[in-house]
Amino acid sequence: MLEPFYSPSVQHTLDLIGIFVFAISGALLAVRKNFDIFGIVVLAEVTALGGGLFRDLVIGAVPPTAFTDVGYFVTPMFAALLVIFLHPQVERIQTGVNVFDAAGLGLFCVTGTIKAYEYGLGLHAAAALGLATAVGGGVLRDVLANEVPSLLRWDRDLYAVPAIVGALLVVACIHYDALTPLTSGLAVLTAFVLRLLAMRYHWRAPRAWNRRSTVREEEGA
Amino acid sequence: MLEPFYSPSVQHTLDLIGIFVFAISGALLAVRKNFDIFGIVVLAEVTALGGGLFRDLVIGAVPPTAFTDVGYFVTPMFAALLVIFLHPQVERIQTGVNVFDAAGLGLFCVTGTIKAYEYGLGLHAAAALGLATAVGGGVLRDVLANEVPSLLRWDRDLYAVPAIVGALLVVACIHYDALTPLTSGLAVLTAFVLRLLAMRYHWRAPRAWNRRSTVREEEGA
Amino acid sequence: MLEPFYSPSVQHTLDLIGIFVFAISGALLAVRKNFDIFGIVVLAEVTALGGGLFRDLVIGAVPPTAFTDVGYFVTPMFAALLVIFLHPQVERIQTGVNVFDAAGLGLFCVTGTIKAYEYGLGLHAAAALGLATAVGGGVLRDVLANEVPSLLRWDRDLYAVPAIVGALLVVACIHYDALTPLTSGLAVLTAFVLRLLAMRYHWRAPRAWNRRSTVREEEGA
Repeated sequence: MLEPFYSPSVQHTLDLIGIFVFAISGALLAVRKNFDIFGIVVLAEVTALGGGLFRDLVIGAVPPTAFTDVGYFVTPMFAALLVIFLHPQVERIQTGVNVFDAAGLGLFCVTGTIKAYEYGLGLHAAAALGLATAVGGGVLRDVLANEVPSLLRWDRDLYAVPAIVGALLVVACIHYDALTPLTSGLAVLTAFVLRLLAMRYHWRAPRAWNRRSTVREEEGA
Repeated sequence: MLEPFYSPSVQHTLDLIGIFVFAISGALLAVRKNFDIFGIVVLAEVTALGGGLFRDLVIGAVPPTAFTDVGYFVTPMFAALLVIFLHPQVERIQTGVNVFDAAGLGLFCVTGTIKAYEYGLGLHAAAALGLATAVGGGVLRDVLANEVPSLLRWDRDLYAVPAIVGALLVVACIHYDALTPLTSGLAVLTAFVLRLLAMRYHWRAPRAWNRRSTVREEEGA
Repeated sequence: MLEPFYSPSVQHTLDLIGIFVFAISGALLAVRKNFDIFGIVVLAEVTALGGGLFRDLVIGAVPPTAFTDVGYFVTPMFAALLVIFLHPQVERIQTGVNVFDAAGLGLFCVTGTIKAYEYGLGLHAAAALGLATAVGGGVLRDVLANEVPSLLRWDRDLYAVPAIVGALLVVACIHYDALTPLTSGLAVLTAFVLRLLAMRYHWRAPRAWNRRSTVREEEGA
């Protein structure tokens, strides 16, 4: 097992920030789908904690942190309350929310990969699970809201790729015995900036060969 | 760990009743969605056992009771058979089904909370998991049927709140060292009656601030 | 625990073939749903590994094989690449894909049942989990693609029944102490052939009593 290489309190704070911004995105979707306030809280909790819960079940870390740490559990409630009372304002600062969400993505792909490795998974598996930690909550959010997960849709800006890059940087650092607070911070930053660039310049992944993306198609999507 | 505080055979019987009525609700939705008989059985099983299965995975109680106890597994099949041959009659007694479903909700939020606490979770986590036990099967049912979970929709009578109240009563009893068959029975009864009242008087939760629910909107929902 | 009764390398090869063909079916659906290449890979992975992942979580075999064996993880990527570049050709050989998928179904219901039994589950639970292993990936595939799982739909050829028969043959063999490479191979073959016959002759399961299936309804389904 690795030495914990953030101070625990720093790591905890970073986790809570990531949880908070993911919860905001869940709560906003719930408002758009016209859910009641309990539905908003549920979707905030699932979005914020779903990825980490899946990771913990897979690596056998039960009961998962989502259920043992009160802060993890209460934070999405605050996010939901904020959205319930201020959602027009929160919508208006959607760009700000997206920036935080990008930060959450960067944090979770890195901490998820490290935790999976600490529990004995191999490097490729740790990276895959880091990715699942970062994007799993959003997929669950969309499934519960009965929508096609935006992760999978071609007409969305790149979301998985920044997380994959962040996770791969971490396993490269582990492989070369270079995982330090600095290098893992750089991995977070890389994923974060890549996601920001993808949103700014609308980077999108291609679809299967022979499918051209035209404006017409985009309108109909 | 707590002393088991129902006699095991009483608890088992109560569990099977809860499983049976949840399975009925799953099978009825499957009939409405025009599934074949295997689809009806699958949806009955998932609805009845999904919540407990999730709880057991989270607390690390593997293999989950759903797979180790033949009765848990066979009961939803009987419910499915009943619906397959008698579904017009079962639909007609929908009110009766709803009453049983309310009983299942009350039972599962209480037994789920207690089991989670017995496996070492904290009080707030035990209550959250009790809620998940009670409502999880219904959410899975709706996701598999490709519908927005009725748990989340604002135009449904309160469902989560009675289960939350039941779970909180249990953790309050545990906190004050007052968990007895009597008090836990009262918690079941409270959740049960609250759900009946919510159905009778169409209690609904508000939505996010600024969204007024008018008759027009309700028609279009 | 049973002796492993295939040579490990034979079993591993069979598993990889099953994973490959299931991944093809996931990737093809992703192309039809217009997902981007990352969505195609994700759906291929989930379809191929989802059933086994669920089984491993239920029996407590963590971390699941899906994450510990590089081959399990890389195979769906190859399948996804193949579909991305050759999907019109793969569609054209849809019949061939269906034959392989039937082979995967037969393999997974048998190996899933055996693994569940080896981990101490009872016979009925092992059969149920073998079924879940065989069909679980396809259900997850359809849920993520926001479609009603084809497993549940009445207008699809029998899919669950061949897997149920295969799983029951295995537990019958275990019960009578007759599980050998030969008999388990026959169980695979039986499930495989039953599925082929179901596709060839469009065997379908009935729906609930009183629902007649007419051509009109089928068109509207």
